[in-house]
Amino acid sequence: MENGRMYPERPRTFSTVRSKSSVPPIFRLLMRINPRAFIVLLLLAFSGVLYIGASTSPIVLFVFCICTLSLLFSLYLTKWVLAKDEGPPEMSQISDAIRDGAEGFFRTQYGTISKMACILALVILGIYLFRTTTPQQEASGIGRTTSAYITVASFLLGALCSGIAGFVGMWVSVRANVRVSSAARRSAREALQIAVRAGGFSAIVVVGMAVFGVAILYATFYVWLEVDSPGSMKVTDLPLLLVGYGFGASFVALFAQLGGGIYTKAADVGADLVGKVEQGIPEDDPRNPAVIADLVGDNVGDCAARGADLFESIAAEIINPSGFILFPLVVHSFDLVISSVGILSIRGTRDSGLVSPIEDPMAIMQKGYSITILLAVLTFGVSTRWLLYTEQAPSAWLNFALCGLVGIITAYAFVWISKYYTDYKHEPVRLLALSSSTGHGTNIIAGVSLGLESTALPVLVISVAIISTFWLGHTSGLVDESGNPTGGLFGTAVATMGMLSTAAYVLTMDMFGPIADNAGGIVEMSQQPESVREITDILDAVGNTTKATTKGFAIGSAALASFLLFSAYMDEVAAFAQLPFKEVDIAIPEVFVGGLLGSMLIFLFSAWACSAVGKTAQEVVNEVRRQFIERPGIMDYNEKPDYGRCVAIVASASLREMIRPGALAIISPMAIGIIFRMLGHATGQPLLGAKVVASMLMFATVSGILMALFLNTAGGAWDNAKKYIETGALGGKGSESHKAAVTGDTVGDPFKDTAGPSIHVLIKMLATITLVMAPIFLFIEGRLNRHNPQL
Amino acid sequence: MENGRMYPERPRTFSTVRSKSSVPPIFRLLMRINPRAFIVLLLLAFSGVLYIGASTSPIVLFVFCICTLSLLFSLYLTKWVLAKDEGPPEMSQISDAIRDGAEGFFRTQYGTISKMACILALVILGIYLFRTTTPQQEASGIGRTTSAYITVASFLLGALCSGIAGFVGMWVSVRANVRVSSAARRSAREALQIAVRAGGFSAIVVVGMAVFGVAILYATFYVWLEVDSPGSMKVTDLPLLLVGYGFGASFVALFAQLGGGIYTKAADVGADLVGKVEQGIPEDDPRNPAVIADLVGDNVGDCAARGADLFESIAAEIINPSGFILFPLVVHSFDLVISSVGILSIRGTRDSGLVSPIEDPMAIMQKGYSITILLAVLTFGVSTRWLLYTEQAPSAWLNFALCGLVGIITAYAFVWISKYYTDYKHEPVRLLALSSSTGHGTNIIAGVSLGLESTALPVLVISVAIISTFWLGHTSGLVDESGNPTGGLFGTAVATMGMLSTAAYVLTMDMFGPIADNAGGIVEMSQQPESVREITDILDAVGNTTKATTKGFAIGSAALASFLLFSAYMDEVAAFAQLPFKEVDIAIPEVFVGGLLGSMLIFLFSAWACSAVGKTAQEVVNEVRRQFIERPGIMDYNEKPDYGRCVAIVASASLREMIRPGALAIISPMAIGIIFRMLGHATGQPLLGAKVVASMLMFATVSGILMALFLNTAGGAWDNAKKYIETGALGGKGSESHKAAVTGDTVGDPFKDTAGPSIHVLIKMLATITLVMAPIFLFIEGRLNRHNPQL
Repeated sequence: MENGRMYPERPRTFSTVRSKSSVPPIFRLLMRINPRAFIVLLLLAFSGVLYIGASTSPIVLFVFCICTLSLLFSLYLTKWVLAKDEGPPEMSQISDAIRDGAEGFFRTQYGTISKMACILALVILGIYLFRTTTPQQEASGIGRTTSAYITVASFLLGALCSGIAGFVGMWVSVRANVRVSSAARRSAREALQIAVRAGGFSAIVVVGMAVFGVAILYATFYVWLEVDSPGSMKVTDLPLLLVGYGFGASFVALFAQLGGGIYTKAADVGADLVGKVEQGIPEDDPRNPAVIADLVGDNVGDCAARGADLFESIAAEIINPSGFILFPLVVHSFDLVISSVGILSIRGTRDSGLVSPIEDPMAIMQKGYSITILLAVLTFGVSTRWLLYTEQAPSAWLNFALCGLVGIITAYAFVWISKYYTDYKHEPVRLLALSSSTGHGTNIIAGVSLGLESTALPVLVISVAIISTFWLGHTSGLVDESGNPTGGLFGTAVATMGMLSTAAYVLTMDMFGPIADNAGGIVEMSQQPESVREITDILDAVGNTTKATTKGFAIGSAALASFLLFSAYMDEVAAFAQLPFKEVDIAIPEVFVGGLLGSMLIFLFSAWACSAVGKTAQEVVNEVRRQFIERPGIMDYNEKPDYGRCVAIVASASLREMIRPGALAIISPMAIGIIFRMLGHATGQPLLGAKVVASMLMFATVSGILMALFLNTAGGAWDNAKKYIETGALGGKGSESHKAAVTGDTVGDPFKDTAGPSIHVLIKMLATITLVMAPIFLFIEGRLNRHNPQL
Repeated sequence: MENGRMYPERPRTFSTVRSKSSVPPIFRLLMRINPRAFIVLLLLAFSGVLYIGASTSPIVLFVFCICTLSLLFSLYLTKWVLAKDEGPPEMSQISDAIRDGAEGFFRTQYGTISKMACILALVILGIYLFRTTTPQQEASGIGRTTSAYITVASFLLGALCSGIAGFVGMWVSVRANVRVSSAARRSAREALQIAVRAGGFSAIVVVGMAVFGVAILYATFYVWLEVDSPGSMKVTDLPLLLVGYGFGASFVALFAQLGGGIYTKAADVGADLVGKVEQGIPEDDPRNPAVIADLVGDNVGDCAARGADLFESIAAEIINPSGFILFPLVVHSFDLVISSVGILSIRGTRDSGLVSPIEDPMAIMQKGYSITILLAVLTFGVSTRWLLYTEQAPSAWLNFALCGLVGIITAYAFVWISKYYTDYKHEPVRLLALSSSTGHGTNIIAGVSLGLESTALPVLVISVAIISTFWLGHTSGLVDESGNPTGGLFGTAVATMGMLSTAAYVLTMDMFGPIADNAGGIVEMSQQPESVREITDILDAVGNTTKATTKGFAIGSAALASFLLFSAYMDEVAAFAQLPFKEVDIAIPEVFVGGLLGSMLIFLFSAWACSAVGKTAQEVVNEVRRQFIERPGIMDYNEKPDYGRCVAIVASASLREMIRPGALAIISPMAIGIIFRMLGHATGQPLLGAKVVASMLMFATVSGILMALFLNTAGGAWDNAKKYIETGALGGKGSESHKAAVTGDTVGDPFKDTAGPSIHVLIKMLATITLVMAPIFLFIEGRLNRHNPQL
């Protein structure tokens, strides 16, 4: 029976998608170099980097060494994963098709993004060549041109690194998926280990690259610009030179998340609507023509996009306004070490054959997380004592260690709250499932209410975290020249670092999700026996939970970090305008209007992200329906569906649809800034443009946090309410309740995997774009009015 | 066949609901007085009012006269409506059942609200007895006790008037509905005229009472406190004494809207889910046990609640911070006159018998609106020239007239935008209907996207309106003692008044909706011939459109007015604290957190409002299903459904469910203010509590505007997408597309009729509660630090 279902021939439909090469140009260039020459070049570059590091600070040297070791460790992980077998040919055929689809989409998508990045780089160059420089920069000898090239170069470097982070995530996941499926035939534990190590590989690369990139930029500028020597710029001014790096990273992350998110959910929704709802065939069934597109989507939407997103979070958070750039670098270096320990703690037991009972994979991963968290608390304490001890305020480091602890606790609370609202072990999802029994309508109403309600607790947690860490920092004893306490903002910054101090492990758990999902799909499609499917189903369920909790983690850190980035923006504006810019007064009509527009931006962006999925999904539905009608043999396995056409439709539609919300996010802050700058010019308010943008940024952040929480939680809850019914509750699979729950799940898909995660990136992108574009919001002649009290 | 369907006996099930008396206690008291003595008392009271008015200002006398005439006119309207016949007994039986249900619910609901209002009055009294008074008040001889009693008395008066406004709306609609049904048997034009005049009656009473109430309070205080005489308080300080009136009105409006909104939509959703979706019987079919509850809901949810809401809008807008209280009073007096003209312009033609073709009722009502708008532009110009002309700035009145024009245009734009997004003549709803053809899921995704997207244009319009009117006011030539321009805020205030200058006519159109809806229900239930149903169906469709556009109008005016209320709040705080309070700086962590909490409040409130409907609807669904199972004869008209049980279930559930969101709205601003006041005390920031509340208020307003626009538009669009499919498009009634569209409509119901309108009220309630509660947010000892620059 199993054989009867298999298609005799190799899928030929993929020839249209199958590409000449699956490696981006930069890698192809590197591969053409003679291997020995390559190693020599690499060693030379590395020695140069070490030299620069050593002349900057021993701390930078420490960071370099840790990063190098971590990258070597990640090489070990990838070798380990790739050494595993790819399973029987029916598996590797499917995996090949997925890989081709994913790599093809990745190439086209990043091609588009590169072009846009180059255009934006020219715009930035133009802006910086025509703006004025700050007095500090002039004093330190950085001219207008140098500053323009520095910004553009760091923008491009950030964009490139973010792209590589996305590529690495996708690269490993399309290779690990089939190995996990194959291992699932032998042992659950081994499958789990492969998925974790593959996820760990890309997590370590992403975090390591972010740390390494910032450290190299920092050290280079430090040595080149002779920072801290008399007459040069101060070390605390350095981060402002690096904002281009953060903006480049977030620019690429935004489009990666949008394009990937639209791809994955349009394919998923389209496949489900016809497959599950109309034809009644199970998920990932080989008869569904959209199934390969769905599996490709997991890789480009979840793996590639999440990699770029977290790269960006870490980069933006390192470039914080406090100027203590070395501290976060050390924190993240420790992060690499402790997360490696956590990853290695998950190992295949020797007696794990098919006979042993399946352990709960969630418990295993939780154990690893607990180890990592414990180590994080320890290393965080060490880092604060090492770097933040000052004789001037001997107990300051203790206050900051407490801030870090608050950050770690906040992360835990966020994870716990998102679990409470999305896990069917708790009441909210059970009530949601119950509401499905009275129909589609009540299911949607209940899900929307649940999502809206779930914003309350995280906001309370974030509020307490912001106020308490600001206060801890404020009372740390650090004072400025006039004796006023100054540490408040740095306290909040340290909390953000605390929150992200286990980022690599969390990213590992997150990457685990789509790999397990894909493995399950391959097992299903290649018609493996029930016992194998059981194993991948369990892994898939665990992956769903870890994915949901990572989102809580991501939005929490974005919320904390946003407050820092406001201050960075205000410092930047003050430096350019040479006017004090200490407050954003929303009692001014224009500033209030800026806030209104900022919140509206979030609503409009979410609308366009969701409707992109809806539109693309409709195209998929129509195509799948057409195939079922034109090839009636599909349903009884006599005819082969045309997977490639679905892949092509989804790919081109999602590339088209990502432009509109993306352009909105890039253009509207610039447009608002310029319009209000002109209005300010006409009405004699020199800082008006900058103030309105600040207010836009803050309101957008607040609305964005709430909207993302709403979308993520509602989506996750709908998904699990459906899963709960599928366990047999309320009538089980096929009942009317189940149909209503499937509708909810479909609605939740674009919420939780397209719009929601895109808003995380949007919030951070807005913060960095306003930093980089600050010069164009300023009406510089206003400087003449410097002493006008009305400003 | 028609007779065969009728139930032989009179509905006995309503005996449980039928009440001893349908008149609230205050009316009963009045009715016990001898009629002649009553008239003498009334004349005496009126002469007293006229005397006070005359000693205040001839303008107040003018306002009094207009209000009196309008109330007489409304008496004429109600006599005219009540003189119409109630139709055959099968109609009046149904109408009696609806009236009993509505009046019973109203009594219980307002009983609960009264109790809460009394408790709150005691709280306010306590707060005001223990606070300090402002120096101005001390100078004018108003002691602490006087000020406390003034505030509490105006709170109770506002609550009472708001309650009466709600009662009047409900009272007339339960009487007009059956008269409209009966008239529909004769002529469409006559039915339209009755519905319009019934709506006009309650609109005139609501607006007239709001104006009258404020004018009497103003005149009383003016005479009593000897305002503007040397050593007394200035006339511009008077509005702050009246805030209690606005808060009382919005307190009652909030609970009226919540309770009524939950009632109407729970009954509607419950009736639809079983009736339309499961059993396939049409809307308002007598076999549906929840149908009477649904019809009752229109009266208590739409009529009563909307009356209280608009009463509150007008009251809050008159009590604006500029102090020019006479101007809005005159504007609204003219509103009463021109709206009366508009209402009278809709008349039954003599040759309107059944033979004439049915005219488009929408066109008739639009014509009336155009007449009213034209007159409004004229009278607004007259009012500005009359009251705002000043020799000091001879062209100022022209600027303000332009502000009024901007307001009127803004109202028009809002109406146009909501029509564009919710009318199926335009693209958005057609695309939404199209998305129904691919299933329930895509319909919901498309509707959510449409709603989110529809926030963009209104926000742009409001932004332009706020900035341009502020600028018009600023450049009007009005200056303060030191020569700084001061008219900006008043410009925005005038725009709000311009927007509301046709309020009475708009409210008439709005009230028309539920009356026509009910009339249709009665016609359907009493099994009238097809031709009669056709007429009421057309009126019902028009009512849906006017209801949707009124919501745009209401949120637009709330958005404009909110900006004024911020300033009123800041003035109030500054007066109490005797500290300058000119800015709300969101760069301060606590103030930012206040904003975060404010936005969260809106999300949580919406969640609870929606889930209240969902939960109550589930109870209805279970009850209706139970009746269909236990009384199988219902479906073939052999058994009578138990309507009364559904009415009782919905009534008790909605009273229970309105408490949670209502309490959230009342308690959280107070809690936030007090907590941050204590935090400010501990950290030496005396105004912290007040600043955090201000930021909460502003963020809540912005999020509230967006959320309300989203909910109202999405709901309206879903409703009309369903109607569009019912016209025969995309498969028509009964098709799969239609089923998906019904799901969307069900989801939209609580969005557009419970959560959305409640947010309008919430925004205004937050503004007035913060004004009234301002004293408890202040850490008064902070006054000692008056000259500390860090504040």
